[in-house]
This record gives sequence, C-alpha cells and structure tokens, in this order.
Amino acid sequence: MVPPKLRPMLVRMSTMLLKTLREEPAEAEVPSHRLLLRAGYIRRSAPGGYTWLPLGKLVLDRIAAIVREEMTAIGGQEVAFPALLPREPYDVTGRWTEYGEDLFKLKDRRGADFLLAPTHEEMFALLVQDMTNSYRDFPLTLFQVQTKFRDEARPRAGLLRGREFLMKDSYSFDLSDAGLAESYARHRAAYQRIFDRLGLAHTIVSAVSGAMGGSASEEFLATSDVGEDTFVACTTCGYAANTEAVVTPVPAVPDREHRPLTVHDTPDTPTITALVGLANQQSLDGRTDWTAADTLKNVVVTVHHPGREDTLLVIGVPGDREVDLKRLDAALSPATATLFDDFATRPDLVKGYIGPQGLGLRYLADPRVAPGTAWLTGANEPGRHATSVVAGRDFTPDGTIEAAEVRAGDPCPVCGAGELAIRRGIEIAHVFQLGRRYTDAFSVDVLGADGKPVRPTMGSYGIGISRAVATVAEQHHDERGLLWPDEVAPADVHVIAAGKDGQLEAAGTLAAELDARGLRVLLDDRPQLSAGVKFTDAELIGIRRIVVVGRRLAEGYAEVRDRRTDERHDVPLTDVVRVMTQGPGYGPGHE
Amino acid sequence: MVPPKLRPMLVRMSTMLLKTLREEPAEAEVPSHRLLLRAGYIRRSAPGGYTWLPLGKLVLDRIAAIVREEMTAIGGQEVAFPALLPREPYDVTGRWTEYGEDLFKLKDRRGADFLLAPTHEEMFALLVQDMTNSYRDFPLTLFQVQTKFRDEARPRAGLLRGREFLMKDSYSFDLSDAGLAESYARHRAAYQRIFDRLGLAHTIVSAVSGAMGGSASEEFLATSDVGEDTFVACTTCGYAANTEAVVTPVPAVPDREHRPLTVHDTPDTPTITALVGLANQQSLDGRTDWTAADTLKNVVVTVHHPGREDTLLVIGVPGDREVDLKRLDAALSPATATLFDDFATRPDLVKGYIGPQGLGLRYLADPRVAPGTAWLTGANEPGRHATSVVAGRDFTPDGTIEAAEVRAGDPCPVCGAGELAIRRGIEIAHVFQLGRRYTDAFSVDVLGADGKPVRPTMGSYGIGISRAVATVAEQHHDERGLLWPDEVAPADVHVIAAGKDGQLEAAGTLAAELDARGLRVLLDDRPQLSAGVKFTDAELIGIRRIVVVGRRLAEGYAEVRDRRTDERHDVPLTDVVRVMTQGPGYGPGHE
Repeated sequence: MVPPKLRPMLVRMSTMLLKTLREEPAEAEVPSHRLLLRAGYIRRSAPGGYTWLPLGKLVLDRIAAIVREEMTAIGGQEVAFPALLPREPYDVTGRWTEYGEDLFKLKDRRGADFLLAPTHEEMFALLVQDMTNSYRDFPLTLFQVQTKFRDEARPRAGLLRGREFLMKDSYSFDLSDAGLAESYARHRAAYQRIFDRLGLAHTIVSAVSGAMGGSASEEFLATSDVGEDTFVACTTCGYAANTEAVVTPVPAVPDREHRPLTVHDTPDTPTITALVGLANQQSLDGRTDWTAADTLKNVVVTVHHPGREDTLLVIGVPGDREVDLKRLDAALSPATATLFDDFATRPDLVKGYIGPQGLGLRYLADPRVAPGTAWLTGANEPGRHATSVVAGRDFTPDGTIEAAEVRAGDPCPVCGAGELAIRRGIEIAHVFQLGRRYTDAFSVDVLGADGKPVRPTMGSYGIGISRAVATVAEQHHDERGLLWPDEVAPADVHVIAAGKDGQLEAAGTLAAELDARGLRVLLDDRPQLSAGVKFTDAELIGIRRIVVVGRRLAEGYAEVRDRRTDERHDVPLTDVVRVMTQGPGYGPGHE
Repeated sequence: MVPPKLRPMLVRMSTMLLKTLREEPAEAEVPSHRLLLRAGYIRRSAPGGYTWLPLGKLVLDRIAAIVREEMTAIGGQEVAFPALLPREPYDVTGRWTEYGEDLFKLKDRRGADFLLAPTHEEMFALLVQDMTNSYRDFPLTLFQVQTKFRDEARPRAGLLRGREFLMKDSYSFDLSDAGLAESYARHRAAYQRIFDRLGLAHTIVSAVSGAMGGSASEEFLATSDVGEDTFVACTTCGYAANTEAVVTPVPAVPDREHRPLTVHDTPDTPTITALVGLANQQSLDGRTDWTAADTLKNVVVTVHHPGREDTLLVIGVPGDREVDLKRLDAALSPATATLFDDFATRPDLVKGYIGPQGLGLRYLADPRVAPGTAWLTGANEPGRHATSVVAGRDFTPDGTIEAAEVRAGDPCPVCGAGELAIRRGIEIAHVFQLGRRYTDAFSVDVLGADGKPVRPTMGSYGIGISRAVATVAEQHHDERGLLWPDEVAPADVHVIAAGKDGQLEAAGTLAAELDARGLRVLLDDRPQLSAGVKFTDAELIGIRRIVVVGRRLAEGYAEVRDRRTDERHDVPLTDVVRVMTQGPGYGPGHE
C-alpha cells in the first residue's frame, strides 16, 4: 500500500487560476488565513468550507503524500470508507446521541437516519469483525484519508476550524494491551516524523488525567499564538498537558481540630471580593487575614446530557479561582454544562450565599477542597455566610471534579518542584488508546492462539491534513508572505521571467530543463506584468528558491534568490540547473 | 498541476487485510459486484455505500491517476470544492428545487439549509467570477476529483449505482461558442484516451435530441449486458444515441380527404388488442385490415413539477407502442411523470375510451401523430370509439413529445436508410456544452478584448471514477475471477510462494528485486495456505502476470503464468526480473 508520489511538473502562471490580493481580506482573523487567501491558495465557498485553488491543492497533496508515506512505513494499509453512514452502528455505541450538535445528521428519501461521520471507529471495528478470523490476522493498522464534516458552532480562522476538512484517521487492532502500547508508540513516532518533515514545531501533551498519566491519550499541539488550545508545560520536568487534562495535586491537610461552624450576618456580600472585605472588616472568627483562597465559591451549572434531561450540579472551588468551562466540559463529557442563572425558579438556591452544607443538589468539589479543610462559604440564607465549614465534617461532596482554572505558577502535578507555564497551540493530531470500547460494543472476537476467542483492542489516531496546511503557514511566514518548508512547498523552484521577449523565452527553456531534471517548477511567464509585481507575488507565494531571468540575461546570468535568507547570487544560466539540483551551495565561479 | 504518480510497492498478502470468498455473495446481482466482493476489493458499509479495501483502493487510485494525467494533459487545473454547500447558489439557478429527491439536503445546527452537492456548476461559475478579470484569463479548464452524494431511489449493482461515489468533474470556460466547441472536443478526445487506457470498450452516444444533433451533449457508454442505459445504434450510418435522445422522423403525410369523424359502439374494448379485434370483426369504416398502428392510444400521466403542484397531461402515441417513462421523463425534465390511475376522481376521463377530440386537458402527441393523419381512438364515452379522427381537423395537440418507446428496426433519424439496433451500456462519462445558463444566473462578466464586458460560456464534463472500477471489472473477467488490464491492475506482478521454507524466502527475494526495479508487486507469502488456494486466489484477484516460486525452485526455475492467455513458462529464477521488466516476450533459453 505505497502512497502516490508527486511527479515533477511545470506550472505556468500565465494560464494558472491565480489572483493575488494586495489588500488584507476582511474575513480573515489570523495570519495563515490572510496569507493563504492573499496568495491564492484557497477561497471561502461555504460557512466553514474552503475551496482549494491550484496552488493550495498542490500543498494539500504534498502533506497528504507525506502522511501516507509515514503511515505505510509503519505498516498501515489504506482503505476508504463512505462518509455518509446509517445511524445504526452509531446507535449501538451511543455516539449518535453523545456526539451532540457537532454531528451533521440527515434523512434519506425514505426517512432513514444518516450521519456524516466525524470519525469511523464503529465502521473499522465492524470491518475487522467481517475480515478477520484468527490471531494470525493481527496486529493490523488501517487508515484512510478522508473528507470529514463537523457542525462547528463557530467555524473560525479559515482552515484551522472548518466544517469540512481533510483528515487522516487510522485505527490499530491488537490482541493484547502490550500490543496496543506498541502500535500506539509506532504511531506516535510516525507522527513525530511527519511533523518534523512538515517543519512544524510542536509539543506532545497529555490529553487525559487518569492514572495512566499521559500514555493513553496525547495531543500534538503546534505552538502558535493563534491556537485555540491552551496547554501547560512544567518549567522543571518534561510534563506537558492539555489544560483539560491537568490534575490538581491534593494538598496535605494537617489533622487538627476546627472551630464549630458559625453563621454570620454578611449583608451585601454576593461576591468573593465583597465577602473577603467584610470578613476582614468584621474580624470574623477573630481573623483579619482572610483572602479569596479561604473562601469556597459554589457555582450552579446546568448539565446537558445528550439524549436525556438536563440536571443541576453545584461545583465548589476555592474563591480565588474561576470555574473553567472547558475543563468542566471535559470532566463531564459527553455531557456539557452552562452557567445556571434562573434563580427565580429555585428559592432553595440563594444566589451569592450558597454553601455546600445541607444543599439538596449534587455537589462536586475541587481537589483542594480536601477532607479536613475549613472554609468561609455561604450559609444558604440571604445576606449570611458561615465560617469553619469543614469538608468531611459539615459537608461531604459527592465527588471531586477538575473544573477550576489552571494558572501560571500552579505546582506541577508530576514533579511537584516545578511550576506550570501556560502556552497556546493548534491541535494537529491526536493519538488515543481506545481499548475495547468499540470491539465490546459489537462483540468483535477472533480465534486466539490457544483456541479460545480473544477480543481485539483498538487505538485511534488522527491528523488534520487541511488544518496542517494552515498550521504550517502559521509557523512559516513573514510580513512579505508565506515561506514554505521545502517538502511542503507547491514547487521546488519559482522561475521568474522579469521582462519580455528574450527573458520570457530563456525562462521557459530553463523551467523546462529543471522540470526534465525532476524538479517541480512554477514559472512566472505572465506577459503583462512588471518585474516588481512578479517579485512581490513570488514573496507572497513563498517558494524558497527563486530564479530571476532578468536584466543580466544578455551577459548570460540569472539571479538565484533564497526567500528565507534573502541571499542573492548571479549564476551563469548554464549553471542554474546544476545549482538547483545540487542543493543550496552555489560553488565557485558565481558572483 | 501534474497528478500523483504511483510509486513502486511491495504488498505482502500475509499481512494485508484480505479475505477472499469462495461462495457467491447473496447481495450481489452483477458479475463485477460479485467478483469485487469475492476477491476482497470492496465491502458494503451503507445502503449504496462501499468501503474500499486495500486492493480496491489501489485500483481506484490507478484510475484516478490516469484521469488526472489526461486532464492535466489538456490543460486542466485541479482544485477541490467543499461537498457541503449552502442552499443559496443552488436557489439562484433553481437546482435546489429542480434536482428533486436525488439531492441530499440537511440543516446545520442553526437551521440553515445545506446540500451535498451532486455537481458544482454554480460554485465553479462563482469561482471564475471571483478569480478572473479579463479575456486574458481564458480559456480555462478546472477539475476536481471528489466524493459525490446522490440519494438514489434504488442503489444497485454495487459500485455501478451507489449513493456515495468518486467522480471527476471538470468545467471549461470560454469566451466564444467556437472556444466552447474546442474545449468540448479536447475533453471528448481526452475521455477517449482515458477509456482506451482503462481498456473500456465504449460507444459515444448523443444525449440530446435538439437541432445541434449530438454535438452539445454526449454520453460515453461502456457496452455491457448489465448496463442500465439503453441506447440505439444505426446499422448503416455512425449514429448512436441515448434512447431518451432518439428523434422520431415525422412521416410524410399525403394530402388527402378523410371521411368525417364517426363514433361507433365498441363495447368491452378498453385495450388496443380488444379494439383492433372488434374493429376488424365489425369492419369499421368498411376496413378489415385494422392494426394497432392505426389506433391512437391516449395515456394520462401525473406530472410532478419540482416545487409546484402536480398537473395532469395526456400523451398520444400510436397504439402499437407503449409510452416509455424514461423517455417521457427526459422530455419533461426537470419534471417527472407517473401513470395516472385515479379515474374515479375524474369522470371526464373515460378509462379505456379516451380520445384527444374535445379533451379538456393538456395533450401532447407523438411526432407520428402528424397533421393530416387519421386515427381510430376513444370517443370519451364508455364503450365507444371513433374512426377518422384527424389530427389538425378534429383535434390539435398542444405540442409533440418524444415519449413513445423506441424499437429495434425503427428507421434511423439521421441517415433514414438504416435501422436502429437496441443496445445496453453503462454510463461512464458525460460531456455537455452547458452554454451560459450558469454564467447568466450569476451575471459572470469579464472585460473583453474590445473593452466591453463578455460573458463566459461553460462546458461540464464528468467521469465516474468508482463506477469505472466496476465497469472495467464488468468487461474484464472470466468464470475464475477478475482480469485487470495492466494499467489498472492493483499490481504489475503477483508473486506466489507455493510452499514454505525455501520457496517463501526465494519468493520474498524475487519480489524485493522486482520492487527495486520499479514494479508494483503483490507477494503471496501467506504461510498457512496450500498452493492450490493461492492459485485460486490469484486467479480471482486478477493480476495478469503471475510468478510461481514452487516445486522447480531446487532446479533454479520459477513458473511465469499469464492470467489472460493461460500461457505458462518455466523461467530461470535469475531471469525473471529481466522477463518482467522487458514485457511479455520470454526470449530464448526458457522451457
């Protein structure tokens, strides 16, 4: 299953569908989007849907080819599933409901339910059930490169978050946990090679907070200021994690006697700031050193369970931290939450004065609210708060939840010594040890070596290919335009005929020679344009090696430019092919 | 925009996802479907949706690569549009409604209307409007290779008629009719080269019946007994046309006096057969030579107009012919028709006794019902018919319609001398001079050479790539299995290790050598299987050149087989690479 390899080619700009834009497109929010529009790589054609123009398609194909090569190198076999699938398999696993509004659903002419599959775990599990019999058929790694659809609430940033995008998704099938770990490691290494070839600086972050640490699910985040994902990295050890996956270290609580719970009149203190001010002013419990961290904030949220009725939940966090709704959603997944504010309907919930003691609702607390800790919190009466409300004595949470914001400077949950720094990134890949969720759902069993049935365990691994185009552009551009890494560029050499007549002809001959030597060439042979316009366009388009056939043609010279370093050399025309095929060195005899 | 070229590769069957089937799959109706399932190229995953297994994906990629090469060779530039598109552009052209139930429609999370685009005329016209300014940007040919969705009422025959399929659609833009004719001719020639390379025997048939003859719209039909399309071919001249496009020659009607219209009692004659029998028995109008061709059959149909209310229509055809609903639909397009049979609600329509005279409904007649022709037809009273009902005298149709069945032996509408033969085929491509329908709809204008605006004219050209896989299989198989043409085959050579131990090792070495020489190799290195099973699978899989490393390995020989001719030669192992890379000749020194 070896992937297609791009052939050399010669593209003439005189006939290519290309219109570069001098002005900043109003629709574009981020540099990659602006430049891909301006340089004629993409156009918007639908809400969250983009058209690949000829230049853009070349880059997209390059990236897809690199992904295919590396997947094939680890034994991946390419298949292709339909995108339009019947509801039934997704009902079996519950994802028809769980996926929520992100899933595009539709009915066919007979009224049957279909979906546009966001990923294909169900179908791959069913295929393996159909196509394998025995342990001898394993391990197995299958992949596809496919257009995916996702009904994003807020498509943004061009290709970075679209509703239709190209993705490589692969699935590994092993018969043991050790086998799965090996398949996972192979994918992880292949992804590192892929992103190195794409020139993408990236961090691998843990995406799960469980006991297995980072090994069962990791995200590849390309570091970028425009990234939507926030992650933390320890300043001391190698720990890096999705903000959603950060585990709060449980504090060591000294075993001491607390005062009894005491209720105080605290009028007009619905906010933490007002409460702390009043507590110090009134020397509650004889203290004047109250801080927000001593208070317990109780936030009521409505939990939306896919396919079931909403429920209410109260989250307790130290008063110096906000609830992070993304972390909360991750903790509640597949349910989601929104802030509750319909207090008129719930007289039992006293807005601004809620406390966990005697609350008739499900209550989940931050890990810092450990048994034995004492808090200043609401007394569930208007204008009153209570001191010395002790976890485990005066209230017992129904569980802990990771929903408090993570802040720079928080202690590292792994080494304990370092502090966490907050960074931004673009999610470019996800690797995930699924286990047997899907093979269990469909009872996929094969004959084991011992003659007994054995159930395969799965991994799933995705790379956003169209998103990678934008991410590479995000990391590789300057104020003049794009600046593609060589392996990704739409051509190896950009040949410019600066003027007309002889220069046009000589540039054409040179381009044909480079093409014949196996290089992919973009030839600017547009007859009506000035050299200045062509130079500006070349810098915008962003191919590293530029050859200008211009004013020194009469003396037998072309100019070789490096878009990245801005180096320029006059090279004898007869030498250009040799220079281009031998790489960056220009050798002796050049000016 | 040069297409990807497949790299050499070595695929080991010991690890490939493959399960061949000995039994005929119950779901398959046609040979291509049966064999592609049995040989492990595809699996069904949805109603009308198929998964490409590793072998199938290789063939699909080969065909796509050939199509890309030939499109690039005629100057086509590859782009890629979203498949999920907003309703608005398709409303502008009316296709949101006209496309009817074949169109998959859906709503996004905000309730906005979207469609899965069956073709992209609207979007290409809008792109050209956006990306071009002047006559210098033309002519332009753009294409994409894209997954398409169509809500087929009756998906059938596997890949031949699915609901999700891979298609190459291209669009030409020219500034003159002559330019469009050239672009059309270039596409037509490219398609002929493509189908020659795919080894597809095909006929190009006219798909329109207008004054322009076959030049404005033609279909490429691969001749096949399982084809859904019926076409006619003249036995004398080169005329070939889609049945829907056949034009009925209007008969020369002698100018003569007819008897007056006479109504007769004809009890129990609701059918043509009964009517003709009674007419001869009763010597109506003194004749006993009445035939069905003398009668006029009037068929009531309900016309379904997309987006409007149904209407009733009566079709008049000579009584010896049926109404062909496919021809009728083509004539009424975008409306469709079904037979009306709710006569209880319409007492004015006397079932079995309808005549065109005095009918209060829209009436369209076959061209044979020319002015001056006289007919035996219904009298619009129960049990009564009329003779000498003369077109133009006793009734005047609202127009003519091509809805009568075409029969073998009908006169050729072009040469007049020949007769039409009826054949069956699979539509593999369609080329169509669209004209300015879409550029008019969006007012696409560019600056002409004379400084005035000029409106581009379009052609649209489609090839079903996934359907082509099945069509090639349909034309290239025998009772033992598939038999791929070399350019399409999933590999160039199929190497079989007949036994174990030394044979397995020698076959692996040979396969690696062939791979290193640039050949794509499928290696049957499955350790648990007998030679017989491997031979049977090889014949099923259908790669032409098979090399067996088997019992004569000890003497230094392998057996080279040709799947097509069944020729077998023992070739020295050291010579196999040379033989395979030099083509079919085996040269001296072989047994």
